[in-house]
Amino acid sequence: MTTIDLNCDMGESFGAYTLGMDEAVMPLITSANIACGYHAGDPTVMDRTIGLAKKNGVNIGAHPGYPDIEGFGRRHMDLTPQELRSAIIYQIGALQAFARAHNTRVTHVKPHGSLYLKAVEDPATAATIAQAIVDVDPDMAYIALAGKKGEHMTALSRTMGLKVIFEAFPDRAYTPEGTLAPRKLPGAVISNPSEVAERALMMATQGEVIATDGTRIQLNAQTLCIHGDNPKAVDLVKTIRQAMESNGVTLAPAIDAGKGLTHG
Amino acid sequence: MTTIDLNCDMGESFGAYTLGMDEAVMPLITSANIACGYHAGDPTVMDRTIGLAKKNGVNIGAHPGYPDIEGFGRRHMDLTPQELRSAIIYQIGALQAFARAHNTRVTHVKPHGSLYLKAVEDPATAATIAQAIVDVDPDMAYIALAGKKGEHMTALSRTMGLKVIFEAFPDRAYTPEGTLAPRKLPGAVISNPSEVAERALMMATQGEVIATDGTRIQLNAQTLCIHGDNPKAVDLVKTIRQAMESNGVTLAPAIDAGKGLTHG
Amino acid sequence: MTTIDLNCDMGESFGAYTLGMDEAVMPLITSANIACGYHAGDPTVMDRTIGLAKKNGVNIGAHPGYPDIEGFGRRHMDLTPQELRSAIIYQIGALQAFARAHNTRVTHVKPHGSLYLKAVEDPATAATIAQAIVDVDPDMAYIALAGKKGEHMTALSRTMGLKVIFEAFPDRAYTPEGTLAPRKLPGAVISNPSEVAERALMMATQGEVIATDGTRIQLNAQTLCIHGDNPKAVDLVKTIRQAMESNGVTLAPAIDAGKGLTHG
Amino acid sequence: MTTIDLNCDMGESFGAYTLGMDEAVMPLITSANIACGYHAGDPTVMDRTIGLAKKNGVNIGAHPGYPDIEGFGRRHMDLTPQELRSAIIYQIGALQAFARAHNTRVTHVKPHGSLYLKAVEDPATAATIAQAIVDVDPDMAYIALAGKKGEHMTALSRTMGLKVIFEAFPDRAYTPEGTLAPRKLPGAVISNPSEVAERALMMATQGEVIATDGTRIQLNAQTLCIHGDNPKAVDLVKTIRQAMESNGVTLAPAIDAGKGLTHG
Repeated sequence: MTTIDLNCDMGESFGAYTLGMDEAVMPLITSANIACGYHAGDPTVMDRTIGLAKKNGVNIGAHPGYPDIEGFGRRHMDLTPQELRSAIIYQIGALQAFARAHNTRVTHVKPHGSLYLKAVEDPATAATIAQAIVDVDPDMAYIALAGKKGEHMTALSRTMGLKVIFEAFPDRAYTPEGTLAPRKLPGAVISNPSEVAERALMMATQGEVIATDGTRIQLNAQTLCIHGDNPKAVDLVKTIRQAMESNGVTLAPAIDAGKGLTHG
Repeated sequence: MTTIDLNCDMGESFGAYTLGMDEAVMPLITSANIACGYHAGDPTVMDRTIGLAKKNGVNIGAHPGYPDIEGFGRRHMDLTPQELRSAIIYQIGALQAFARAHNTRVTHVKPHGSLYLKAVEDPATAATIAQAIVDVDPDMAYIALAGKKGEHMTALSRTMGLKVIFEAFPDRAYTPEGTLAPRKLPGAVISNPSEVAERALMMATQGEVIATDGTRIQLNAQTLCIHGDNPKAVDLVKTIRQAMESNGVTLAPAIDAGKGLTHG
Repeated sequence: MTTIDLNCDMGESFGAYTLGMDEAVMPLITSANIACGYHAGDPTVMDRTIGLAKKNGVNIGAHPGYPDIEGFGRRHMDLTPQELRSAIIYQIGALQAFARAHNTRVTHVKPHGSLYLKAVEDPATAATIAQAIVDVDPDMAYIALAGKKGEHMTALSRTMGLKVIFEAFPDRAYTPEGTLAPRKLPGAVISNPSEVAERALMMATQGEVIATDGTRIQLNAQTLCIHGDNPKAVDLVKTIRQAMESNGVTLAPAIDAGKGLTHG
Repeated sequence: MTTIDLNCDMGESFGAYTLGMDEAVMPLITSANIACGYHAGDPTVMDRTIGLAKKNGVNIGAHPGYPDIEGFGRRHMDLTPQELRSAIIYQIGALQAFARAHNTRVTHVKPHGSLYLKAVEDPATAATIAQAIVDVDPDMAYIALAGKKGEHMTALSRTMGLKVIFEAFPDRAYTPEGTLAPRKLPGAVISNPSEVAERALMMATQGEVIATDGTRIQLNAQTLCIHGDNPKAVDLVKTIRQAMESNGVTLAPAIDAGKGLTHG
């Protein structure tokens, strides 16, 4: 039996500002990456989003980013390793407290935006994030990019005892080298729902994707990243789910949320 | 044998800005209230301050405040109960993660500045903070003002199972009604070291203070709040410690830090 | 010939967060109150919004608020008079620089949200704001609530040489005492478009409104505050404009934007 | 007669946090670069610092930085050209309003920290800043690094009509290539007061500095950047002043502050 996780960024509203369609998307996914107030989200949004995730049986993940709400964490910031470590611990901890208040737990961490990209390119950044995760709670997993670029994550997993969940992007083109085609290239983002669903299915069932040159590349992803920030995106998620279900693929979180609850 | 706790606000530096004399004060106190990045402090300062507290065997407390670094949490902000609850959970959680990374725990919570004063005056505010504490970790204690104004805290302790530690201020004048004389009144802040030490001693050994009209009032405080933000204040703390030690008063945290460590 | 100004809050988007329908509303109004980055808006939004206002021949106003984006300036903050003064000057100045870069000028200032309400209730707050305006540029006008509550503004106008533009709210109920009925009361906000348009017309042509007890009260407003943050609100503005135009009321800014340009 | 300007960063305090010795330094310098609330400073500090500068007859400059108080503007942030432009205009404008309230004007702009370094290395960044300055007030000058690295500033001066004031650093070592030796290199910062004063004098009188390899290089600086953030630094400034005065060098701002006052 094939199983796949669907993860989505959630909790990105902020104060009077609403972003995303969390109510509509949460029932469709299996893992939520919840913003922690640094690049998006605020404490009240975090509280509400964890409640929504728990109600839907969705795994709760921390989605830490750079301290830059105005830039939505999409502008690179040169933090020192100590600053980055501290920023990660701070954000994870804040989310964990809401999880405890809801009698549940944070199962994973996925860096956001510019920090995610930096960790893909720079093993030292990934190692700093990984060490912060392990030091706070070694039962939490790190969601990292599947494929060639994920090799340093496999090494970190071995040396640190870090749990790693590899993810693939069904709506993004992949280069023959096994990584994401840059967004600025034509065709980098795939919008046709049936095409995206087909790619998602291949990722889930065969662990592969067809690259821009037509070759097949290995990804071996345990989770697929999907988006739900507009009505069209929500429809796309539904199409992906349907493709999975019709093909006997089970949708489930990549790790067991029940483990290690702080409260009884 | 008489025992008293000495608590002090710590970790109030922020980025390039240094505030307080944490290195000098930490060895002199038994409980540290650590700023959580809302009114002061930043993640790196939190990390460093917890390390310093642990090294000195000092209890670690969260010191949450209003989200207002520019105003240092001293300006009242009208948060809704939900916003306040979320802000408290967020700040406690952030600090707890650093504590876990240092293999220690957060033992208490003391609201900061304008929020502290609001909780003294307004039982609903105190109840919101108390509920947040209990929901995150019922083993954490709430440090609250001893005396008449602390009566609603005793009630919360009973109804919520909240642990409350009452505190007194040896360098502040008390009204005959049993609360702090407003700072703007002449004589509200006492600066003579031997006088402050004598008051501290009476608070510790007899549970009382002499009010502005000469009457004795009951406080029954388990902790004394002291300040350490300038060289003179540090000397004052030393004078207080000496007075305690010469009179056989043991200095020790009000609650046991060893309990409930998250990691083995 | 009767003339009335229509003012609307604009430029409340922030980073990745969009709020309001500025493109649709700007052509319909005569004065824009532009957020200055404290409670909403950011520098890039300010730049864009001034460009949009200028293109549509709409007067540009500063819309300063409390330093609290998370609370959207709707939570009261206890600033000292000096802090408030500085916050007002800062925000006005920031907007003026964008105006100069667009070769235009800031004609008015309207406090936002909780600060607006405070200035209505507290003459000292209004005076602090007024003095800041006069000290930065005495040609700028202060938009203040028309009616009984505006009396201290008339006094400030006399003593400081402050230009005051009084405003009325066609979609809000008025008490017999001549001020806004609190939002929490039933019927405080009027949503029927034709009723709002009728009230707007009476405000413009007769300087009066019918209060909740049926009595007529004097307002003598020079500007009407309208909202444009959702499609229905935009339709309401169109209904108001139509009512004005069919009844021979000219829509025009309350003060002359051409005066006092910094650049040639 | 030789004239030189002494510029110093001022107004870097923030809320309860004090940084720098502005009261002691202001009488010793001729141009102040005042933080604008993005990397340091706050509106009340800006107000006070402008008052102090005016009282001492010191030229007032805007010192804009990245929006990052926690990092003190020393961490690079990847702003888009539009975001950078807007951030510069915003900060300059905010300071100008305080200048107007004090009946004086902002004469120059000097980027801060990481933004300064970026503008030295990247002509496009310098051009974005320069265009923002010219668009807000073409009478303001841009303080830029003298020497080889300043060549693109000379070009901008020509093409934009931008006023440029070149600055040198008497307490920094220069490479034979004519630019600052990186701080991490040994000897990059010179602390011996008489040596710094001697270098300052050579910069002022001969427009040159002796590089790390002993060769003389041309700088032709109109202003010298000095620091005043600790008692030792203040003594150093005094030594520099004395060296200038004993050698007949006049200390004066590089541009005329009287020009273009907004108010009569």
